[in-house]
Amino acid sequence: MTDAPLEIVSWTNEEGARFAPAMIGSGVFAGEFSLDYAYSRQDSEGVRLGDALRSIGYVGESPLGRRLYAAAFELHIEQGPILEAAAKSIGIVTGVQGIRWYDPTLLGSEAHAGPTPMELRRDPVRAALLLLGSVYQLADKYAPHARVTIGSLDARPGVRNTVPGSLTITVDLRHPDANILSAMDVDLKSIAALGNTATGVAVELHDVWYSPPVEFSPTCIDAVRTAVAQLGLDAMDMVSGAGHDSVYVSRVAPTSMIFIPCKDGLSHNERESIEPADASRGADVLLHAALAVANSTAAAAPGS
Amino acid sequence: MTDAPLEIVSWTNEEGARFAPAMIGSGVFAGEFSLDYAYSRQDSEGVRLGDALRSIGYVGESPLGRRLYAAAFELHIEQGPILEAAAKSIGIVTGVQGIRWYDPTLLGSEAHAGPTPMELRRDPVRAALLLLGSVYQLADKYAPHARVTIGSLDARPGVRNTVPGSLTITVDLRHPDANILSAMDVDLKSIAALGNTATGVAVELHDVWYSPPVEFSPTCIDAVRTAVAQLGLDAMDMVSGAGHDSVYVSRVAPTSMIFIPCKDGLSHNERESIEPADASRGADVLLHAALAVANSTAAAAPGS
Repeated sequence: MTDAPLEIVSWTNEEGARFAPAMIGSGVFAGEFSLDYAYSRQDSEGVRLGDALRSIGYVGESPLGRRLYAAAFELHIEQGPILEAAAKSIGIVTGVQGIRWYDPTLLGSEAHAGPTPMELRRDPVRAALLLLGSVYQLADKYAPHARVTIGSLDARPGVRNTVPGSLTITVDLRHPDANILSAMDVDLKSIAALGNTATGVAVELHDVWYSPPVEFSPTCIDAVRTAVAQLGLDAMDMVSGAGHDSVYVSRVAPTSMIFIPCKDGLSHNERESIEPADASRGADVLLHAALAVANSTAAAAPGS
Repeated sequence: MTDAPLEIVSWTNEEGARFAPAMIGSGVFAGEFSLDYAYSRQDSEGVRLGDALRSIGYVGESPLGRRLYAAAFELHIEQGPILEAAAKSIGIVTGVQGIRWYDPTLLGSEAHAGPTPMELRRDPVRAALLLLGSVYQLADKYAPHARVTIGSLDARPGVRNTVPGSLTITVDLRHPDANILSAMDVDLKSIAALGNTATGVAVELHDVWYSPPVEFSPTCIDAVRTAVAQLGLDAMDMVSGAGHDSVYVSRVAPTSMIFIPCKDGLSHNERESIEPADASRGADVLLHAALAVANSTAAAAPGS
């Protein structure tokens, strides 16, 4: 018997694979989405989420906003290679990285690969080489937590024997500290402006999306840290690079997360796998942390 | 009346827009393609070139190989910006660039943009930055005639929030001198090998195609040069960057080409245009060069 009740939650549609957006159950709980919005999401066949839930008996009846949690913990695989590389069993997750997305386009001039001398070209791919080197260097400048990813490059017309007229790339910048992520944003815009003046190619840089960093509750983080120590496990502090239900839950309740290793850091992949011993250690930490806060004074006054 | 007869030829299907490959008429004439092969080419509707020619009355009856030209000249727009930039009326074309095509692939490891630390990534896009800088530098090393074009980049899976697992690009190298083009080939392979050892990303480099450089006939080039001087025109020597019927014709007859400027270097574009005065000057040079060789001793002994 604990001082405060324990509740186990499996949030609806965390992944968003069938119904976009992801984390829709926790998002409704935290006020990010309305219930009507969530129920009206459709899958690729046109089936609505509300109808799909009704057909399997999972539309609940409790009104929104009645559950006030004194603390929330989420156990998850890391979805990355850090714990494995560091030979640690548990990640004490202190927050979630902020994300900024951009779609810079470099506008040059389409030209024949043969007749056009190099010095008369305005080649967006060659110009991009100068800029992208500086973009990747943001990861070094703001190491170790900064992440810089260029996932897609689209040269148009994309023909072998033609100097492209334009190149659009995607830039994904991440950092757990909002101030540093803002500094990376300023730096990226300086790099783009420099490209504009130095390369003969026009650089257009638009902001696509900003997801602010999340800092988890110190009380919950401490509860996890204490549980790890009680269990004698090898652990390390870390920041989640991916989104999770806890991002939304943390807006309305003190929250933190516990990570366990996954093989080769793989996730969203048929080769994703974990060891039973790691799952067991993670569940132990979750249990000890939850019991500790459920028996603390703070837990007796939810919403305080 | 000239010592040798003059003939004006309009080669079938130079462009290859409806029936691929391009330059099929001159290719059959020079022995590159068989007549059956040419006639059996189909357009996107399945119509065969032979039937299309028959339907408009353009299937000839002369057997192949009976025409022996003592000299051949081709007048063409430059399809590039060089004459315009140099304010010259005539290009004395001394040959056609050789071309080497490659499809290098950089094989890294697909990873999440968030959870994967920079130092644990094997990122083919970041690796490509190092290599492509060196590839473009081949144009400087073998300036002014070398051309280096990267027309297409394909990052897989090409998703904004994923470090790509692979990047395939196209490389188009050109030079009018076969030895230098071979040196560029050797250099490119060294760059790829260096990438293999230095980046943690495997670089696969395959040869896709080689079109050797063409050197036009000194006799024909001299005839053009003399005509230009007689007419008092501003001219410059140049090498064609694009393929032309003269590439095939030059295999069986002394050949050269004459270029005139085109606006902004544009070709294969609705904005392609030339000035009547330039067309007239080009035709004058063609006439004078053809008359000169038709009245020379060499022209009286075709095939010599």
